[in-house]
This record gives sequence, C-alpha cells and structure tokens, in this order.
Amino acid sequence: MMRTRPLKVALLGCGVVGSEVTRIMTTQGADLAARIGAPVELAGIAVRRPNRVRAGVPAELLTTDATALVKRGDIDVVIEVIGGIEPVRTLITTAFEHGASVVSANKALLAADGATLHAAAAAHKVDLYYEAAVAGAIPLIRPLRESLAGDKINRVMGIVNGTTNFILDKMDSSGAGYSEALDEATALGYAEADPTADVEGFDAAAKAAILAGIAFHTRVTMDDVYREGLTEVTAADIASAKRMGCTVKLLAICERTVDGRSVTARVHPAMIPLSHPLASVREAYNAVFVEAEAAGQLMFYGPGAGGAPTASAVLGDLVAACRNKLAGTTGAGESAYTQLPVSPMGDVVTRYHISLDVADKPGVLAQVATVFAEHDVSIDTVRQQGKDGEASLVVVTHRAPDAALSATVGALRKLDTVRGVASIMRVEGE
Amino acid sequence: MMRTRPLKVALLGCGVVGSEVTRIMTTQGADLAARIGAPVELAGIAVRRPNRVRAGVPAELLTTDATALVKRGDIDVVIEVIGGIEPVRTLITTAFEHGASVVSANKALLAADGATLHAAAAAHKVDLYYEAAVAGAIPLIRPLRESLAGDKINRVMGIVNGTTNFILDKMDSSGAGYSEALDEATALGYAEADPTADVEGFDAAAKAAILAGIAFHTRVTMDDVYREGLTEVTAADIASAKRMGCTVKLLAICERTVDGRSVTARVHPAMIPLSHPLASVREAYNAVFVEAEAAGQLMFYGPGAGGAPTASAVLGDLVAACRNKLAGTTGAGESAYTQLPVSPMGDVVTRYHISLDVADKPGVLAQVATVFAEHDVSIDTVRQQGKDGEASLVVVTHRAPDAALSATVGALRKLDTVRGVASIMRVEGE
Repeated sequence: MMRTRPLKVALLGCGVVGSEVTRIMTTQGADLAARIGAPVELAGIAVRRPNRVRAGVPAELLTTDATALVKRGDIDVVIEVIGGIEPVRTLITTAFEHGASVVSANKALLAADGATLHAAAAAHKVDLYYEAAVAGAIPLIRPLRESLAGDKINRVMGIVNGTTNFILDKMDSSGAGYSEALDEATALGYAEADPTADVEGFDAAAKAAILAGIAFHTRVTMDDVYREGLTEVTAADIASAKRMGCTVKLLAICERTVDGRSVTARVHPAMIPLSHPLASVREAYNAVFVEAEAAGQLMFYGPGAGGAPTASAVLGDLVAACRNKLAGTTGAGESAYTQLPVSPMGDVVTRYHISLDVADKPGVLAQVATVFAEHDVSIDTVRQQGKDGEASLVVVTHRAPDAALSATVGALRKLDTVRGVASIMRVEGE
Repeated sequence: MMRTRPLKVALLGCGVVGSEVTRIMTTQGADLAARIGAPVELAGIAVRRPNRVRAGVPAELLTTDATALVKRGDIDVVIEVIGGIEPVRTLITTAFEHGASVVSANKALLAADGATLHAAAAAHKVDLYYEAAVAGAIPLIRPLRESLAGDKINRVMGIVNGTTNFILDKMDSSGAGYSEALDEATALGYAEADPTADVEGFDAAAKAAILAGIAFHTRVTMDDVYREGLTEVTAADIASAKRMGCTVKLLAICERTVDGRSVTARVHPAMIPLSHPLASVREAYNAVFVEAEAAGQLMFYGPGAGGAPTASAVLGDLVAACRNKLAGTTGAGESAYTQLPVSPMGDVVTRYHISLDVADKPGVLAQVATVFAEHDVSIDTVRQQGKDGEASLVVVTHRAPDAALSATVGALRKLDTVRGVASIMRVEGE
C-alpha cells in the first residue's frame, strides 16, 4: 500500500543538526518510508556557505537561495534548523504559503512569535511542529500537547539548558567557582565562545515560554518570562545549598498562580533538595518535571542538545508531518483557548534562602526577624555563625509572594547591623 | 469554529479507572471540548453491577448490556477499562465494526492479540489507542510510536510494575524479606489479594511485549517474553546487591540482539548499579529507560497505576481519537514492517551474579573457575568468604549469552565441592 511518489523535503541550514538530519535521511530512508507510508526525498538544502566541506551531504542538493527553495511549490515539508528570527520567520511563512508543513528547532522564534506562525500554518492548512525547540531529543512538546490533552497541568519545572547544568554540576562536584566551571564547559564544547544566551538564561527563558503556552493552553512569549542567569552563583552558594541537603540548578518553572486565574513563567537558579528527581540530573543532561492533576508527577529525561539528539526530535516531527500530508490532514494546532494572562514575578509564591553578613552583637537577630515579620514573611530556619567580630546569618523563609520576599531583602539592606547581603537564592521543589 | 453536535463516547467498565474517567469527563467537559474542537458526551456506561453505588457516576447512563452499547451505531469512541481477554476482544471488534474508535487500557489483550485488533481497526478505518496499557500515566506509547518515529531504538528497559517495585524498594530500605514486604504492599493497597499477576511477572511481561513490538516495529506477544517473577528474591540477594553498589529491580528489557537480526524481550529481577537512573525509582513508581541511536538515553518516569493516573492516559487518547474522528482520519496504526523475529532467552547477552556455598578447602576456586572457562564465560570478580568450615564464593561474570551462563550454573551444581547455589541474579544497566 506504499505510495511510490516521494514526499519532498527542503532543509534550511546544514550545521551540526542539519548534517545529522541529512545523514539519517540518506542512510535510513527505507525505515522512514515504511513508517511514513511513502518514500521521503531530500529535495534541497539551503546553506550560506555552499563550498564548506560537509561529509555525507550530497553537494548537488546545496543552494544558497533559501527563498527559491521554499517557493518551489513541490516541497511537502520544510525543516528549519537555521535559528534566529529573520530571515527565518519570512522563510517559514513563505513555506506555509506554498503549501509546505514546517518542522523547526527554533526556540527563539517560537518564543517570540509562536502565535503568528501557528495562525499562518492554520490558514494554509499545514503543520508547524517544533519538538526539537525544547529539551533536544526528549519527547516533551508532543506528550504535553497530546498525551496530557485530557489532563490539567499545574506545573512544569525543568532543567532545559545543558550548558548551565554542566557548569552547576561541575561547581557542585568539584567546588569550583563559576568562571572556572565556565572555562571547563567552553573547553569541552558545552559552552559557546559567547555563552551569554545560555548563562544569562535567555535560552531557558525561550523554552519556558513555549512550555508554559502549551501546558496552560494560553499564549506566553519570551517577554513574559522572568529571567535571572547563573553568573552570580558562587561557590559559597553551592556550599550553602549542600549544608541544607540541596543542590543548585538553573530551573525553568511554569505554574498556575494560587487563584488559578493566571500563570507565571520564570528562569532562575534555585536550591532544590537532593531527594528531588531533578537534583540528580548531571552534566549537560536535561530533565523536565510535570505535575498534572490526574497524572500526578511525571519526569522526562535525556540529552537536551547536540546534533544527533536534536535530529531525532526533528525526524520524529518529519514523520508526523509527512503522515498528515499523506492523509490530507493536519495535527493539533495551537491551543490557547484559556487566554490565561501571565502574572509578574512578584506574584510567584516561593521561598528564599538569604545569607547576611551582620554585626556580631546582641539584638541583631531580633532586628532581622522584625523586618521579616513587617513584610508578612514567615521564617522557617535561621542559622547563626560567628567569625572574628562579624557574624553570618542564614535565613530560610516559608513560602511567600516574591514581591514580599524581595521587599524584605530591600529593607534588610538598610539595617545598620546588616553589613551586606552575601547571597539570595530561591528554594524550590519541596 | 467549534462543532456543536457532540462526539459520543461509550465507557465499558466503571471500576477505579472508569469512575475517574467519568468524573473528569463530567467535570472538565469544557476543557475537553476546547481541546477536541467539539463537545464530547458520555453516552453510556456498561457495568456488571448497575446497583452498586458509584459517586459522581450518572445512574441513567448505566447499562448491563455492553454489546448493545457498542452496537448503537452513534458511538464515536469506545473506552474499554474492563480488562481481560473475553468478552472484551469481541466487544472491541464489534465497536470497530460499528465505526467506533477504541481507547483501551488492556495490556493483557494487547499483548496476546494486538495484531488482530490493529488489523480490525485498520479495516474499519478507526483508531486503536492504548497509552494506559503500559506504565499508567507516563506518556510512553505515543513518544515511542511518534516522537521517536525517525530514530532507531536499540533498547527499552524499565520498571513497569508498581507492586513489585514497592516490594523490592521495601526490601531494600528495611531489610525485610519478600513475604513481609508483600504483606505490607497488600495492607497498603499496592498488591491485590491474589498478587500472582504482579509478583510472577505476568503483568510486566505483557507490557514488555507491547513495548518491544512498538520499539522494534515488529510483532511480539506475551508468549515471546521470557519471564521470572520476584518470589525467589531474598533479603540476602538484596544485601549482596548492596555490597556491589547495586539494588535489585524487576526489569522489563527489550533489546535488539547483537547481530541486529532479531529482538529479545524478558522480565526478571536484576541488579543494577545505584548510579543508574532506574535505581532511584522508589515505591510504586514506574520508569522506562529508552536507548535510541540518535536520541541517546531517555527516561520517562511517573505513576504506573492508579485510577487518576490511568484515566489521564485514557483521556489523552480520547482527545486524539476524537480529533481524528472530526478530521475524518486516523492516527498511525500498527507498524510491524521489520518482521524481526524474537530470539529465546538463551541468546540474550547478560551478566550473572552467582553466590555459591562451597567447601572451605584449597582448590575449590580453581575448580569453579575451570567450569566457567569451559563454558567460555569470563569472570569479572570473585569474592570468597569463609565461615566455620564452609565458605561462600560470589562470582560476577562478564557479559555472555544467557545459555552459556545457565549451562555454567548447571555444571557448578554438579561439582562435589559446591554444596549449593545460594542465588543467581542477572546484572544489568552497566
């Protein structure tokens, strides 16, 4: 019953991921054909530098004219692994206009403007799939959109950036400082020459926006996501976490607010207990923890980046898009019917771990405790350590709105007896 | 754009899972409608005992005539949560004949006769979905069938039975023996009055058959799965595992054979290193580890049973089946094109941990080592412990075919100096 006319695929971009996609499509064509129900053919590959040597990539397929490729009219599916906003957005919408479904790994574009792209795909009755945009090879978008479509997701909390997890894991296991761990990540190829997108949390924030939108059936963009990177995390923070039976992870957290009338999305370093499943995620691995009303607690774990893992996600989407093309249908599109607004960081309910340098004299703890009480922030534990006339005070709060916690820290800074706030970190996962 | 005529759903069975399905369908109808694109209506519920009190289940929907319900002709999707082979197989095929898609949680039926059911669904152009049949709420069937459709899966290894994981976790954490741990599992509701299906590995074997078929695109039935339960696992085995830095889990393992020309599927207790992600799966949780060529190592974790988690999986499938009905299409059906045969247990390459009671005299180790060598089984480590004239010898082998390992044990039993084989357990996950 297999159709003999092949489905035609255009590939935009042939870097680490694109080369792997090409390799698998050319070496495992028979398997892909059997799973799709028709042969699938790579019809063209748009690249910027056609003369660069790419092992295993058929040179005759290369073109520098991506626009002409997506406009050919005979392309069934366009795979986009270029990244960035433009010219990719224009290329994708042009592909839709010419009847092609699109498989993309582009988190930045989806997080910036997913709604427009979904609407364009729907208008042209084609698919837009992007499993590879979040957590690499880990099946996550499809499980959230389809497997959990009959459930109510309350929280998505994950490690979605491998570079920063590698750095934090290194700091935790070796006691290294941030710069030293970053250097090692760079040397081993886990961090890029300019690591800003990773270490400042931009990459994770884009993924958080995508996950929040899907989980809560609403629209969340990159701008809605509160973001703190890990450049301020110190070896002392990690040591402090250890004393609490915790480790530090850069988390993307998407939640419903307490009243259920809005959602929040944020990325920041946080202490989590060693007993939490996310605590044992090592090196550059990713893992996402999902809490749903009926399903309970689920976790998805795997490699979050890399050529082959990302290609696996891209090709899974390619098979789905091709099957739909053959059946003359499309998969589920955007689901944003709840129209839940995104609340600011101040509304998030969390806990703070605060480390203060204070004067070593009587009454300091009473003063500090008063400030917490004035802001309606309840204290869970306090640990005092004296050292040569100075002392440090480590306070862990109970759960309170981030705005109240943040105001408390502001007021503490103004106390004469508080010489400095050595570190502030949120505590999650309890 | 929402259709106003509702899709009609028939529910077969209203026990723990069916009641939860009913509860969610009646309380979260608006969400389901938004996600499907049309309202969905529970049109009838077939039960054996209509007079039993079921909180939240509309009495007017109950019927004892399941056959008449699936034959009504206006049913779009039948949800089957009765379990067992007959009359369920007949009911499902009757539903197909009357144009209904089927969502089932029935591992026994799928593992016994999945091919026939898939063929019947395809013949009537309807869907057969069964995410709930394996690992409860954990999205697993859909990720394997769809997300990894462009990849080559080499191994699936998982904890797919919550009852036995609870028992082994209890034995590991408290030092309890098997019977004591089983009693506790029964008291807490984790084990049924007759625990045979769980503790003898039948439940896990059915799931292994389903997973192997999907992962390797071939047909695997319950009868193809090698099966050992955990009733022989002793507190001494657990202690032995601990000394090796391991824990004992009842694993379902589906692999390609070394030459790639066949597959194997098996369920048995095994020692796995504490560093393996499956080692930290506690209580009645399930987790499945998947190794794919491009994706690398993935893990899926969550509650493997229970009313609400299973209902979550059922309703995810319901949404998919309803969307397909609206679009006039069906999802991906059975994929068994590789036709890879299933090899017997003897062909599986694994490692043994063997504990022998031996005479405490010179030359015993040499005798024992000779038996291993004669069977081409290479020894990794040996530990000798003397106690009052007797001694114990613990041997851990390198990887070898199970047939060779098994023959080695047979030959060891015949040695005069071997007084008994205290325990044999496979070692996995390294």
